[in-house]
Amino acid sequence: MSHLAALTKLLGPDASLISDPDITSSYSRDQAPFAKSAPPFAVLLAHSAEEISIALKYANQEKISVVTRGAGSGLSGGANASADSLVISLEKMNQILEIDAANQIARVQAGVINLDLDTAASKLGLAYLPDPASRDWSSLGGNAATNAGGMCCVKYGVTSAHVRAMQVVLASGEIIELGKATKKSVTTYDMLHLFIGSEGTLGIITELTLNLEIRPHSPATLIATFPSVAKAAAASAQLLRFKPSMLEIVDQTTLKAVEAWHPLGFEIAGSVLIMQLDENLHRCEEALEVCKNFDLIDGVFSEDPADTADLIRVRKMAYPALERMGATLLDDVALPITKIAEFVEKVEALSASSGLTIGIFGHAGDGNMHPTIVHDHGDAAAATLAQKVFGEIVAIAQSLGGTASGEHGIGSIKSSLVADEISPTVMDLQRSIKRVFDPHSILNPGKKFPL
Amino acid sequence: MSHLAALTKLLGPDASLISDPDITSSYSRDQAPFAKSAPPFAVLLAHSAEEISIALKYANQEKISVVTRGAGSGLSGGANASADSLVISLEKMNQILEIDAANQIARVQAGVINLDLDTAASKLGLAYLPDPASRDWSSLGGNAATNAGGMCCVKYGVTSAHVRAMQVVLASGEIIELGKATKKSVTTYDMLHLFIGSEGTLGIITELTLNLEIRPHSPATLIATFPSVAKAAAASAQLLRFKPSMLEIVDQTTLKAVEAWHPLGFEIAGSVLIMQLDENLHRCEEALEVCKNFDLIDGVFSEDPADTADLIRVRKMAYPALERMGATLLDDVALPITKIAEFVEKVEALSASSGLTIGIFGHAGDGNMHPTIVHDHGDAAAATLAQKVFGEIVAIAQSLGGTASGEHGIGSIKSSLVADEISPTVMDLQRSIKRVFDPHSILNPGKKFPL
Repeated sequence: MSHLAALTKLLGPDASLISDPDITSSYSRDQAPFAKSAPPFAVLLAHSAEEISIALKYANQEKISVVTRGAGSGLSGGANASADSLVISLEKMNQILEIDAANQIARVQAGVINLDLDTAASKLGLAYLPDPASRDWSSLGGNAATNAGGMCCVKYGVTSAHVRAMQVVLASGEIIELGKATKKSVTTYDMLHLFIGSEGTLGIITELTLNLEIRPHSPATLIATFPSVAKAAAASAQLLRFKPSMLEIVDQTTLKAVEAWHPLGFEIAGSVLIMQLDENLHRCEEALEVCKNFDLIDGVFSEDPADTADLIRVRKMAYPALERMGATLLDDVALPITKIAEFVEKVEALSASSGLTIGIFGHAGDGNMHPTIVHDHGDAAAATLAQKVFGEIVAIAQSLGGTASGEHGIGSIKSSLVADEISPTVMDLQRSIKRVFDPHSILNPGKKFPL
Repeated sequence: MSHLAALTKLLGPDASLISDPDITSSYSRDQAPFAKSAPPFAVLLAHSAEEISIALKYANQEKISVVTRGAGSGLSGGANASADSLVISLEKMNQILEIDAANQIARVQAGVINLDLDTAASKLGLAYLPDPASRDWSSLGGNAATNAGGMCCVKYGVTSAHVRAMQVVLASGEIIELGKATKKSVTTYDMLHLFIGSEGTLGIITELTLNLEIRPHSPATLIATFPSVAKAAAASAQLLRFKPSMLEIVDQTTLKAVEAWHPLGFEIAGSVLIMQLDENLHRCEEALEVCKNFDLIDGVFSEDPADTADLIRVRKMAYPALERMGATLLDDVALPITKIAEFVEKVEALSASSGLTIGIFGHAGDGNMHPTIVHDHGDAAAATLAQKVFGEIVAIAQSLGGTASGEHGIGSIKSSLVADEISPTVMDLQRSIKRVFDPHSILNPGKKFPL
């Protein structure tokens, strides 16, 4: 009996197990531009942890690769499939199971969309804070599996700071609970955080218990232009004293791309900083004074929520504006914030030497930068060069005390770069931990680190 | 050759390896009242990771138990030794290696005292926030090994939220680095958090890279009296909306103990809440209005820093006041905050049925309660009963969705209670992870969970 036939029988008639190639092909990859992928032999649109348990038990016994998928919004090929793999999609497990306002927690199925939880929480004066750029379509399970960041994380921390407990299906099919719904617990080893950011390689997260926070005050928003990224980056380090809930930077290449699309008046700026304060609202004037020490060209701020969208538009348009110019490779590295200027200078040199356009923007307050390589659509030589430059950008970050990924994950596009910054012993420990949870290496093999 | 002689030779003449029983006996235990302990055969006052590496390599080869010790301030017997064990104390590794104000991090040796780092950070307008009650003498390595909490953690999170990276010596003697000094990183499995709270069972933390935060505003402090713990607990859940940086509760038994020592005027109160706000300072009046919905007896607040010590005195005196009454067993459980009232009611019933005095105080905003059993010094029967009641308090918490430890750790006094709230599979996963890092189980064997 084929694996498909066997799984069909085991899962029963109510399961959504799909093998139609027209459909499975749309489950073959995430949003990473150049990672290998192929349609899986089947896609299970799981309805419950129990269904996933049945599928994994069989896959574990038969040593079938299993690729878990949330919404497919990933940027590192973490959800990319191979022809001999089973994809398990969590998209149908999209129920908010409970919002416990008094204890400030939500219990959700892993397929719930990030924004849907925040919207539900907002009705009770609460918020689910982690705000990846994909928040209106990425799933909370995917956010946890990649440890997604976002703009407000400079103040509130990334996904890992907001997860209290989870239900996981192990490779063996066993369903376990990790963590605790209480705000504090030191009763077991912290295996919860081992799963956060593990990119589907240790088990399948089916349910999450998440922190809800008191909804922050509507922010004051400040935008400031500087003659250079170096000046803007230096200013950003000084602006952290205001406890910003957003502190973003955009370089000149990206500003020019925005201007070419929608002129917003940044043609003379070398760089822009956008900051939000949801406490210390009254201190924007003082923040602008700080910026003056770094050759501020111009700055405005507003506490009127109606102005917010206008003031942050240039940041929201950064990536789409670069995408308009051609095919893009969006990189993601994290650095000490004091190294941003040096990093940008080196990436600009790389842009000049390679002849590729590289726009840089990112979360200045976290030192998490997104250099984006642009080349002509359909130019195979440029595409190959871009992939090489993509890795060189990571190497620049690593040489400055930085790391291969700040928030997008390693997936399949960076797994060969991890060894450049960790010791062989740490790499071996990762492999040993993987063996504890997934002895036959069926779960997303080769993702996160080389097997 | 004896282990002592072999270690003396391997470590060389500069090492501080002590076998004088007058000294080793003072390294036999932490502050837990009833856990078994015995003087170790030797104590190494380590000066470097390299010395620890040499000692562990030998211990691993010879299968000698190794008990790591910070300042000995632990409350769960996590640092208690046995006669055949080697104690490695980190007390001499007490150097603050670097404070990088621009990147808001400190790199410290594990033996640095918590308060010493905060004091050094304060000179730069920064703060190391986690504030265990022991902060003026507990070590940062011990704080990380137990994932220590504290009063301000209701707003700022426990130790685990403030560690970016660490150096660890594995049981094999290998020295590794976990985590990254950057603010964000998703490059490897999060083994950093696996070590935080692992209580010396996975490796020896020798160095830490810690978050420093912009020093918060001097807080406004509010104290409010209520007729009962139930009312105070219900009020505390509503006070979270003000984002308190402290939200503590004290029950009547504890208040009476305080009054008997230093009359502060709480003789008619059934319970007291103490809250601090380091933002929303102006909202204390509004907070008191909230308290009126819960039968507030009386409340005062002040934004004058000079008044703070006065207003929080009753909370600071809670445990010492109970200690004055006899021998104490300080428990530590975490609960959903909505279950505090029910928990207190059940513990009061247990106090009545057992005849033991049990004072209850704790971190209401975190649901982290510290019932403290008091009995006469030297009363062996009462001591035995108190130990039984200690476990029954944990069982009450577990029955209400709570957990065996919120911040003190499992150590040796609760390791038999862990199995009551986690599945056998999760217990086995803990054992498997332990084997990855410490295959011969030389590191603090039997602590944290039964082997």
